[in-house]
Amino acid sequence: MKQLFIIKIGGNIIDDEDSLNVFLRNFASIKEPKLLVHGGGRIATRIGEKLGIESKYINGRRITDKETIDLVTMVYGGLVNKKIVAGLQAFGCNAIGLTGADANTIPATKRPVRAVDFGYVGDIENGHVETGNWQLFIENDLVPVMAPLTHDGKGQLLNTNADTIASVLAVSLSRFYHVRLIYCFEKKGVLKDVEDDKSVIPEINSDSFKELAEQHALSAGILPKLENAFEAIHHGVNEIIIGHADDLLCNVSDEMQGTLIKS
Amino acid sequence: MKQLFIIKIGGNIIDDEDSLNVFLRNFASIKEPKLLVHGGGRIATRIGEKLGIESKYINGRRITDKETIDLVTMVYGGLVNKKIVAGLQAFGCNAIGLTGADANTIPATKRPVRAVDFGYVGDIENGHVETGNWQLFIENDLVPVMAPLTHDGKGQLLNTNADTIASVLAVSLSRFYHVRLIYCFEKKGVLKDVEDDKSVIPEINSDSFKELAEQHALSAGILPKLENAFEAIHHGVNEIIIGHADDLLCNVSDEMQGTLIKS
Repeated sequence: MKQLFIIKIGGNIIDDEDSLNVFLRNFASIKEPKLLVHGGGRIATRIGEKLGIESKYINGRRITDKETIDLVTMVYGGLVNKKIVAGLQAFGCNAIGLTGADANTIPATKRPVRAVDFGYVGDIENGHVETGNWQLFIENDLVPVMAPLTHDGKGQLLNTNADTIASVLAVSLSRFYHVRLIYCFEKKGVLKDVEDDKSVIPEINSDSFKELAEQHALSAGILPKLENAFEAIHHGVNEIIIGHADDLLCNVSDEMQGTLIKS
Repeated sequence: MKQLFIIKIGGNIIDDEDSLNVFLRNFASIKEPKLLVHGGGRIATRIGEKLGIESKYINGRRITDKETIDLVTMVYGGLVNKKIVAGLQAFGCNAIGLTGADANTIPATKRPVRAVDFGYVGDIENGHVETGNWQLFIENDLVPVMAPLTHDGKGQLLNTNADTIASVLAVSLSRFYHVRLIYCFEKKGVLKDVEDDKSVIPEINSDSFKELAEQHALSAGILPKLENAFEAIHHGVNEIIIGHADDLLCNVSDEMQGTLIKS
């Protein structure tokens, strides 16, 4: 099976022009088939403030009302996505920017209203995607750059968590490729001591994850990331690494610097 | 040669949700290979006002400074493009939204500063594009939806007139397809009397265009459209129709309602 790298970057890299530029140069230099999933929350908040659109959160999750879905469509699908695409093109990487509506790459369902109405938030149907067009792009040397947006097939764009998109794509494409999913964030990996960058846990499996969770040894920020990761591992993804964006080139090689997630 | 319809819509349709919806349903129902090029100027102006970005024009042409290129990247490449794509998906049309940076579909050069500095405006190099990825999309039943943005290959997005993009695409793809280029605007066609919708000129060729121009019988708004059209006809495009968006389905058939441009 051909190798495929699925790499996710968050707002901390996107917000800093220099970090982003270094990251894009590194990403472009990866020779194997690859795709990028990006977030972009802070830029949306900043532009939203200027437009008088208040960011609303419940339990740390953005509530996406009518104004907000337009805002994130502009910012994620337009500003952030196209800047990344143009930046990658400058490094000779034939990037193509996508939302889940484009080529119907990620159909989703508006989250049902239960205790909380999250608004225009999309849950990916059955947790998988139609892979035909993904393979079309990858096999034709195009490099998909995915904004965290999906659609309901009835004309409505939906806001979907970028970590979830990365993990669902990894699961779906694992049928055709040997997938290594790499989450790039602001830490060197999953840390034993969140204050100590040298305390990277080199490997976590299902058992040690349970232990760590029971000991409350994991920070609130990393827990959903790890849950996403194990979900993907249990559904066939070969390898998942959580690490720092600066270590990308190590983490696509055998000299991993981050935390390796295994079943 | 296979038929290809290249259809351009402007701000007057995009600004009106109902008109846009009718148009998208009609467009989706066209069975032949097709692609859509859209503008979106007024929405950018409106959102720009809220963001405190002033729209600047010289001789009716927008000056694209640093703030403005970010604005139009958000609005054209994000909000407008993705709404159209999601809308077409709802009608069963497998649309894929693109800027010229995506898959390097339209490389361009920043317009040199002469009498006027237009800012981040892109002129399409040699007036043609690499057609490989366009054919890849079309032959795989994807329907490209093109925002009026290009890139310089060095990481900079550029603002490019949507009429020009439509005409350059028509010229480049005429080597592989029998291209009919249809400009949809707010009039029934090129009018003898701009106040009289029934005065559509059914056909204009190079000679009659010269005459009409000399008689000053054409409105200032239609002149650049016609110049673009004849430029495309002289470079191999088979047919060009200028007509009303509501007449789209007539204008993709033999019962044209607009103005046919011929060499």
